[in-house]
Order: sequence, then C-alpha cells, then structure tokens
Amino acid sequence: MEAYELILKKRRGESMTEEEMSFWIQGIVKGTIPDYQVAAWLMAVYFNGMTAAETAFLTKMMVLSGQTLDLSTIPGVVVDKHSTGGVGDKTTLVVAPLVAACGAPVVKLSGRGLGHTGGTLDKLEAIPGMRVDLSQQEILDQARAVGLVIAGQTADLVPADKLLYALRDVTATVDSIPLIAASIMSKKLAAGAAAFVFDVKTGGGAFMKDPADARRLAQLLVDIAAKNGKKAVAVISGMWAPLGRAVGNALEVAEAVAVLRGGGPPDLLELSLVLGSHMLVLAGKAQDAVGARRLLLEALHSGRGIEALKRMVAAQGGEEAVIDHPELLPRAPVRRVVEAAAAGYLHAVDAGEIGLAAVPLGAGRRRKEDRIDPSAGIELLVKPGEEIVPGRPLAVIHAQDTFLAEEAAARVKAAFTIRSEPLPAPEPLIVDIVAD
Amino acid sequence: MEAYELILKKRRGESMTEEEMSFWIQGIVKGTIPDYQVAAWLMAVYFNGMTAAETAFLTKMMVLSGQTLDLSTIPGVVVDKHSTGGVGDKTTLVVAPLVAACGAPVVKLSGRGLGHTGGTLDKLEAIPGMRVDLSQQEILDQARAVGLVIAGQTADLVPADKLLYALRDVTATVDSIPLIAASIMSKKLAAGAAAFVFDVKTGGGAFMKDPADARRLAQLLVDIAAKNGKKAVAVISGMWAPLGRAVGNALEVAEAVAVLRGGGPPDLLELSLVLGSHMLVLAGKAQDAVGARRLLLEALHSGRGIEALKRMVAAQGGEEAVIDHPELLPRAPVRRVVEAAAAGYLHAVDAGEIGLAAVPLGAGRRRKEDRIDPSAGIELLVKPGEEIVPGRPLAVIHAQDTFLAEEAAARVKAAFTIRSEPLPAPEPLIVDIVAD
Repeated sequence: MEAYELILKKRRGESMTEEEMSFWIQGIVKGTIPDYQVAAWLMAVYFNGMTAAETAFLTKMMVLSGQTLDLSTIPGVVVDKHSTGGVGDKTTLVVAPLVAACGAPVVKLSGRGLGHTGGTLDKLEAIPGMRVDLSQQEILDQARAVGLVIAGQTADLVPADKLLYALRDVTATVDSIPLIAASIMSKKLAAGAAAFVFDVKTGGGAFMKDPADARRLAQLLVDIAAKNGKKAVAVISGMWAPLGRAVGNALEVAEAVAVLRGGGPPDLLELSLVLGSHMLVLAGKAQDAVGARRLLLEALHSGRGIEALKRMVAAQGGEEAVIDHPELLPRAPVRRVVEAAAAGYLHAVDAGEIGLAAVPLGAGRRRKEDRIDPSAGIELLVKPGEEIVPGRPLAVIHAQDTFLAEEAAARVKAAFTIRSEPLPAPEPLIVDIVAD
Repeated sequence: MEAYELILKKRRGESMTEEEMSFWIQGIVKGTIPDYQVAAWLMAVYFNGMTAAETAFLTKMMVLSGQTLDLSTIPGVVVDKHSTGGVGDKTTLVVAPLVAACGAPVVKLSGRGLGHTGGTLDKLEAIPGMRVDLSQQEILDQARAVGLVIAGQTADLVPADKLLYALRDVTATVDSIPLIAASIMSKKLAAGAAAFVFDVKTGGGAFMKDPADARRLAQLLVDIAAKNGKKAVAVISGMWAPLGRAVGNALEVAEAVAVLRGGGPPDLLELSLVLGSHMLVLAGKAQDAVGARRLLLEALHSGRGIEALKRMVAAQGGEEAVIDHPELLPRAPVRRVVEAAAAGYLHAVDAGEIGLAAVPLGAGRRRKEDRIDPSAGIELLVKPGEEIVPGRPLAVIHAQDTFLAEEAAARVKAAFTIRSEPLPAPEPLIVDIVAD
C-alpha cells in the first residue's frame, strides 16, 4: 500500500477500506507519511467527502492511535454531552449537574480550542481555585465519588486528532463535515462514555451556519456512534442570537448558577432540559423524554442540581462559596451600557458579531497562547421580538478599560437589527432531533 | 498576505491576483511557505482549476523564479517546438532540422522526465558521442553558427517548476490542466524563443486521453504565450496508435533519418510538415502554411534538412557518420518477431500498451535513475486499417535477451486489435489546430 495511491483514491472520490484507513492513520502517527501528502489528502477529502462507513473507519483508527479512558468501573451508564460551540453556550454547566443529580454519572472531557468565547474549561476556571487538568486516576475517583466530572482531555488521547487538526488548521481544511465528525467522535469515544448527546448548533453564530450542514453532521455523529456500538442522540439547536443573556466566562457561570437556582433566561433552561432529558433516557434513568424532564425539574427545584455543581467544584479545588454568592466571581472594572438609538422591534442579535466583539475584551481566544480575562464579556438585555424605545439599554459591556469598552460597544450596537414592523416569528431554539 | 488565505481562496474557487501569485511563488522558492500548504493548494487547484489570467500569472512568476536564456543576439525569430509526449514521437528530430534548413533558427531545450519511451534527449544520446548538456554559452554559440540546437535545460531555469513538480508527483496532482500548462510554458518562456509551436497529443497513448482536455490545454498554452507577448500555435494530434513505426531510441533516430532522406512512414512526415509549417510562418519565413510546406519539402528533397541534422550532431560531438549509416547505431542482440494469430483487419494498436511494453526492455524510464538501453525497442510493421492474414509479422521486439523479448512479445501482441470487419475510418492524425 502506498500513500500516493490513497491520495489518488480520495481525489477520484473513491472510498477507502478499513485496512487502508488503518495504514493511513498509523503512517500519520508514526510520521512515515509526510505532512504534504496528508495535506493533499485532507484537501481531497474536503472536496469529495467520505461515506459514513469511511468516516467510522477513520474515527476508529484515530481512537486506536492513543490511549483510551476506561470508565467500566463506574457504576451506571456514563453519559457525555458535546456541543459544537456557540456564543453564550454555558449549557454544560446547567445540564451536567442536573443529570448527575438524577443519578446518571456524567464524565465530560473538553478540549481547549479556539473560539469567540471561552470553552467550558475557561468558564469553570473563572471560579477561583478550580482545577480542570485532572489525571486519569483523579477523573475516575471523582466520577465514583461525586458522579460528575468536567475536565480537560488528558494528553495521550487521540494523538492522530492533534496531528490532523494542526494540519487542517493551516491548510484551510477545517470545515469538512466528515473530518469534523471524526475529530469530535474520536475524542468522545476515547473518553470512554457509553452514551452521548450532541448539541449541534446552526445559525449565524455557529460553525455550521446552514441547517442542512448541521443535520448532516448530526446524522454522521449518531451513525459513527452506532457503528462503534454506542448510543447517541443529536439535538440541532439554533444559534442565531446568543444563548441566554451572558457572553463571557464569569458572566456565564453566574447565569448557569441562576438557572440552577430556578431563575435565569428561559432559552438556556429549555435547551438544558431537552439535552438533559435525552441524556437521562440514554442512561436508562427514564423511559422517555417526558419522564426525564420531570426528573430534571425535580432536581432543579429541590436544589439537588446546584448541590451537584457545588460538590464538583469542591472536588476540583474551586471556591464553593462562589456558587452561593456569584458576586464573588471576578468582576470587570468598567461597565458600559449600550442604548438603542431608534424605536421599533428587535429582529435579530447577530451571535457571530457578538462573539467577535467579545474576543478583544479578553472573553475568547484568537490564538492558543492568548490569555482569557474571566471577568470580560457582554450582557445582552433584550431578546429578538421585544419592542424597543430609544434609549432602552440593549447590552452592558464588561471590560478592563474604557477604550476596550468603547470599541466593543460600537460593534455590539451594530449587531442589533431593529425594524419598525414587529418580528413575525423568532428563529426556533430546537431545530431538529436526530436519533439512531 | 498569508499563505492560509490563498489556500482558502483557491479552495473557494476564487482567483488569485498577480500580486498574490508573486507572493505565493516567491514563498515556495524561498521556502517560507511549507510543503504541506503548497500541497493543499495544489489539490485545491486540481479541483477548482484556474482562470487563463491566473495561469498566466503563475507562469510568469515561475519564469521569474530563476534565470532565463537571452536569445536576442541570435539573428531572426527563434522558434521552439514542444510535444506533450507520445509513444514513438520522434517528430523533433525531423522538424527541427527542416525548419532550420529553411533559415529559421531553432533552439529547443528539453527536460528529461519520465515516460514510456525516452525523451528527445535520450533519442539523441543514442548517437555515439552526442552531448546534450550544453552550457548557456555553448547554446548561444551553436545557435549562431549552426542555427539549430537541441539540448537539456540548464539547471538554473525555473526552480519553482522543479519544486512544484516534485510535490505534484507525490500528491496525485500532476494531471491538472492549468498546472501542466504553467509547467510547460514557464520552461518554454525561460528558454527564450520568440515563438512556439505545440504538439498536444490526445488518445490512449497520450497524457491527455480526452480530446476535450487536449483542446483546453492547447488553448491555455496559446493564451499564456499571448499574455506574455509571444506568438504560438498548438496542433492537437492523435496518439491512438504509436507515431510512425519505431518505438525505442536508436530505432527512432533511424526512422527520423529515413524521413529526412525522403522515406519513412507517412504519418511521421505529415505531422512534421504540419508542425514545421506553423513554425516557419511564426518565424516570418513564409506567408502561410501552404507556402511554408513548399519550403519544407524543398529542404527535404534537396537534402538540406539532413545536412542541418548532421551539422547539429557534429557541433554537439556526435558521430556524424551515423546519420549517413544508421546501421552504425546501437543494435540489440535479440530480435523477436510477433506474428498475427487470426485473420482480419487491424482496428487498433494501443499506443499506451506499446509504451508500457517498451519500458522493461530499457527503452523508457520508470524512475529518474533508471538507465536507458538505446538499442531496445519495438518496430511496428502494420498500421490500423491494414488487412491481416495469420502468420503476418506484426512487430519486431529488439531486446537484450530472450526473456525480456518474450515478455514484451506477449504484451505487444495483446495491444493489437484484429476484427473480421474492415476498419470504417482510422483515427485522425491532426485533430485540430489552435491559434491565438
């Protein structure tokens, strides 16, 4: 078998066999296939795609390229949740504690990655003292003791993904649906859970702007899980406006806590309940989504959800007091209110633009080495559909200085679309659900 | 400007500007753009193509990447001829001496490359003593003194092509028409002639099997020449059966000499006259193709054509006597006749298969380091359309030993398609002519 032949095969749009994929991924990891051949192959895959079977082979070989986490000693069906990423997406901080409080163990390993706003790890690190870089043993011990772990991926999981992702990043081949699916699924499978719920975002603030692409990715994730003997459900959710009201790490932790205390924005609660109910059904804790939702609401209203979050924070060295008193979270010195200039109805808040405005404030990263400012961010005060009068506050910018605040304010203001006629119907929160 | 952005641009099917192409090619030559980014770009170009303007920019920047040959001190309009390569294509050895004998200086620099049969340089080297690695000064001196030079490319021409070709070769991106056109034209422009005639082959034995692809390449070559202020004509010629009767280096020299002596196969003469007449018109030595053909036939019948060849051979150190006595050329010890088994009409001689059969004999190279055996080859004794009786000799294999001869004989025999009904019409020799 020769690397050249496999590039030619993909260039011609033919499918690779399991054996060929094994040769290919082993060659990449061992370094016997040079980067330039991998790069040409990636671009051929970008153009010609891959079948579901091929993508499953790729995923399997990527998993086999490194170590895997063995969660078989954890009692119960361990469930994991993954979001493709959106602006203001702090759902994990709500849904993971609620599901854990219902007795289904949750072990979620996250990558750091780049993004408009920080990832789940960055949000957790807004809590003083919180450790997310746990060893495999710590992960297992905490899963057993607390039933809830959210931590960084250990270094030895899926080396093939690290190599492929680094090359995709510099060769303009990141946005290929089979490559995205294999990257996500290889890390999820290596992290050892038995069932997965995916939140595939679509809309202007999502990676998959087109709902048809989101649906393809969702289907592929569920298919690959099934081909690897795992249960999975993918929820396709809207990311036109930011989720909830808070964008920025400490602001988002505070908002998640508000939801777990029975308050917070309704869209964040609703999405958390949808995702959580599928997790509970997959974990065998409920017969169906309706029963699961009832369990989740009981956990929420009884306070068992917030208790689960507190136990996890304490186990990972974080200041538990912050959960009871979110005002102890890092706070930015400058707050700048953005006000409406015109009257009318709010038709859209461009999530992509809000995300981009948050990056220079320090809420997200442009490069891996960029430092996050946990206190920075944007609070959105109105949702699409609401009536606006001139002077109504639309948003608050949280920044380190007035210069950064002014810059962000201009960009945030431009992200609001206000029209004279009422908004006929808002974009849906839940677009579709894909199950095996 | 960043390499990433240019890959993305090509991936999206957008066009690169002249400035961007300059940045790109300089980056490749200086080594500031890594191979893996070039490889991804090549594959994106394979899928999305390039506009004629873009291909002309690419060609121009490739020419600027190295030195160029200055032929401005040679009196007259220097013309060059290039074939995309076919099986049994010894046209240069006929047409270049005829054109030079008509007073148009011919300077042709060839690469070595790979191929079913040797390139023009390999054919010339079948003549004992013949030197093809001339210095720039030697090329200029000989062009002035003899009016005819066929030599190897000097090392410092178009370094960008060497880098790009090496990468295309290992990333399955060789067969992209704009990349092929830029590779050919950059070397031709750097070699300094003022006008070019291209012989773009199509058919089973050609690189461009599909006539539509050949037409696209022909048009692109003529367009790029025009955009660089040069005159060019491209002849699209058929390569279904091998050209002439001889395949193999010494055999082909002998056949070219036979044509220059007024004999030889008619298809080789005809193609040489078509190519040569366009060269003479471009060189300003004739008003039109009809007048040019008359001049070429005069040069042929007067013996001035063969004299021009002899002068070139002598100038490059070759044994001139070989031209008068082709029996002095290297001869293989084993000759094996391939006979027809069935009666009928010859419908096809698969040029690609004949080419592949010639390689193991030593007539062509599989790898750069393979040694050529000048005496090895295949003589074809019948042409499509001829009536066949059982036992009629179809071909003679020229080989170093009987083992090689037997192997080739089986393959050669299978390349002949004999059917009971007569061949309705043979494939055309001249398919089309593309001029500016």
